[in-house]
Amino acid sequence: KLFRIASIPGDGIGTEVTEAAIQVLQKLAEVDGTFHFEFEHFDWSSKNFKERGYYIPPDGIDQLKKFNAILFGAVGSPDSNKGQTQAKATDTKRLPDVPDHISLWGLMLPLRNSLTQYVNVRPTRILRGTSSPLRAEVCGPKDLDWVIIRENSEGEYSGHGGTTHAASGNAVATEVSIFTQVGIERIMRFAFDTAMLRPRKKLTMVTKSNAQRHGMVLWDQIFHEVKKEYPDVETDKMLVDAMTVRMTLKPQTLDTIVATNLHADILSDLAAALSGSIGIAPSSNLDPTRKHPSMFEPIHGSAPDIAGQGIANPVGAFWSAAEMVRWLGLEEVADKLMECIENVTEAGPRTRDLGGSANTKEVTEAVCNEIEKQ
Amino acid sequence: KLFRIASIPGDGIGTEVTEAAIQVLQKLAEVDGTFHFEFEHFDWSSKNFKERGYYIPPDGIDQLKKFNAILFGAVGSPDSNKGQTQAKATDTKRLPDVPDHISLWGLMLPLRNSLTQYVNVRPTRILRGTSSPLRAEVCGPKDLDWVIIRENSEGEYSGHGGTTHAASGNAVATEVSIFTQVGIERIMRFAFDTAMLRPRKKLTMVTKSNAQRHGMVLWDQIFHEVKKEYPDVETDKMLVDAMTVRMTLKPQTLDTIVATNLHADILSDLAAALSGSIGIAPSSNLDPTRKHPSMFEPIHGSAPDIAGQGIANPVGAFWSAAEMVRWLGLEEVADKLMECIENVTEAGPRTRDLGGSANTKEVTEAVCNEIEKQ
Ligand SMILES: CC(C)[C@H](C(=O)O)[C@@H](O)C(=O)O
Ligand SMILES: CC(C)[C@H](C(=O)O)[C@@H](O)C(=O)O
Repeated sequence: KLFRIASIPGDGIGTEVTEAAIQVLQKLAEVDGTFHFEFEHFDWSSKNFKERGYYIPPDGIDQLKKFNAILFGAVGSPDSNKGQTQAKATDTKRLPDVPDHISLWGLMLPLRNSLTQYVNVRPTRILRGTSSPLRAEVCGPKDLDWVIIRENSEGEYSGHGGTTHAASGNAVATEVSIFTQVGIERIMRFAFDTAMLRPRKKLTMVTKSNAQRHGMVLWDQIFHEVKKEYPDVETDKMLVDAMTVRMTLKPQTLDTIVATNLHADILSDLAAALSGSIGIAPSSNLDPTRKHPSMFEPIHGSAPDIAGQGIANPVGAFWSAAEMVRWLGLEEVADKLMECIENVTEAGPRTRDLGGSANTKEVTEAVCNEIEKQ
Repeated sequence: KLFRIASIPGDGIGTEVTEAAIQVLQKLAEVDGTFHFEFEHFDWSSKNFKERGYYIPPDGIDQLKKFNAILFGAVGSPDSNKGQTQAKATDTKRLPDVPDHISLWGLMLPLRNSLTQYVNVRPTRILRGTSSPLRAEVCGPKDLDWVIIRENSEGEYSGHGGTTHAASGNAVATEVSIFTQVGIERIMRFAFDTAMLRPRKKLTMVTKSNAQRHGMVLWDQIFHEVKKEYPDVETDKMLVDAMTVRMTLKPQTLDTIVATNLHADILSDLAAALSGSIGIAPSSNLDPTRKHPSMFEPIHGSAPDIAGQGIANPVGAFWSAAEMVRWLGLEEVADKLMECIENVTEAGPRTRDLGGSANTKEVTEAVCNEIEKQ
């Protein structure tokens, strides 16, 4: 069986971890022998944006449509604040290069939207050998096992709104979040379906309907309706602010979580931090209708502060690759890859963010060795 | 000197901790002898809303204007999810009572808006004798010392937008965030002024301008301008998602933080959790022009799960009272009160959320005893 994969390594450490992930995927295929990957590379990035004036060429989205899946690295020019968080959160000042907002509007969001990837799945757990920054009494190794289902196609990221410069010189900006019944229902169903497949069958829905009276109230109402279809799922509701408290102080009480584009963006970064390192965390941008290819990316960003040094943690990219393999229908291969990844996070080598001193290459080779051993 | 204070105890444990705070304030005045407090109580609450149909009577805001300050408890009917977080974050299902959104739109937000309390200040540190849920290597007792400056009058809480039920049956809701130059400039200046008074003089500005292209970009631009007026303040910028990671993994790197209404709402709950208990955290809703009274409230909410049992942690209300006293110009008295509070968090008695078994009354008496001893 042949799978055609588009790879978009992007910027900074995105290129380094994508290369590593491809190596691991090729090794998996080689050892298994029943399937193959063919990769095609797309050099869409902030770096090339500066020369070309665009991220995605006019026929870019169409080119992607023929692939079975997309492996994404990271996007963000060196002024990105987001990028600083893979290995450490520094507080360095940076000069603008390609402003962050341009790089994301230009690449990430159009991909998600044009390929109807309306679900973003972010599993979080403490991999063997890694540890949470939380005290052991607060969070034991098995106490944090969540999957965050993020609405990935509407809400706070609509891009609608604008800025008016009144004659008085007083600028006014509006930012319009758009929530549709169709959009909310489909993400809710996906979340309930996900919860149904998990041992605890629990779903927590997050809004901020005590302060935002329109879209968030619609979320509440639709949740109330959809949950009638899933009597076996235990549900509860949280406000997004209180949710951060519960994640931090009572991680055991959570299982599946569904939230809006912005809320889940924030909560999933927090989840990654609570699980030990943002360098580990994977994400899947899914088109559940399977009309278009889905896209798999580590959540860490381009990390300009460590880019080019070969020291990025590739585990987030490996885990994302495992999720891709699972989405392609190779469940057992995905489980095996996760096993190999965790053998390495447990026994080492480990990168700096996990308390080790290994580089990307060493970790990648160790995972490839594990694959051979299986 | 006489200070006239309006007290709005509200719902649930709000009434219990406000009573405790008043007792402590009266003791402070009695021992000191140079100032007095006169309290007037307002029974605006979700409980009374159900009988009356309103939270604030037509002349309510005018009544408040004659006071020097307002002491607020909490609002939220028993279905509030927010309220569950004072002592613990439970996952109990609850039936709607007064929906949360009504109780907050009806009381909290009109107060903040009508009294031009455009700044919400949320200091966070680890009080003596309490501890962070973070491991000691990640966060030592002195490593978390932040003040979050929250924009309190515009942005994501505008209430604008609406819900349209199209004939197709597909509802669409819009939620409009409104940001004004005047509103952003004044909160930025307040944040810079706050940073200037702190030993490290550091300010971190938080936005999400890589996904929200209008209001958040205006925040970035105005930050860039205003910081020129404060060459002594060291600044940096973070995206709100990455900010949760930095707060969790590198708390030492942060000092003063400024963010929008929604972002700072979320980040300040996280800050409270990371400092040990949301039962401790204070907030000040300030009108820096001093035209109207400012309002002081613990951030914990009405906590229906423990309301009526007399076991709520009053420390958040005491700390809020200390901030009120400071705002009224009694700096030294405020410092003394904080000293007394921390003597009690250190030596006990402590409530359950801090690992003790004391009730509200015992903690209150202990703080009053400390005040007498000074
Ligand atoms: C009560 C609610 C509207 C409120 C807010 O979000 O402002 C609360 O969470 C707070 O933080 O003061
Ligand atoms: C890159 C940025 C637009 C993005 C987001 O907020 O969606 C990122 O933070 C993420 O979580 O995937």
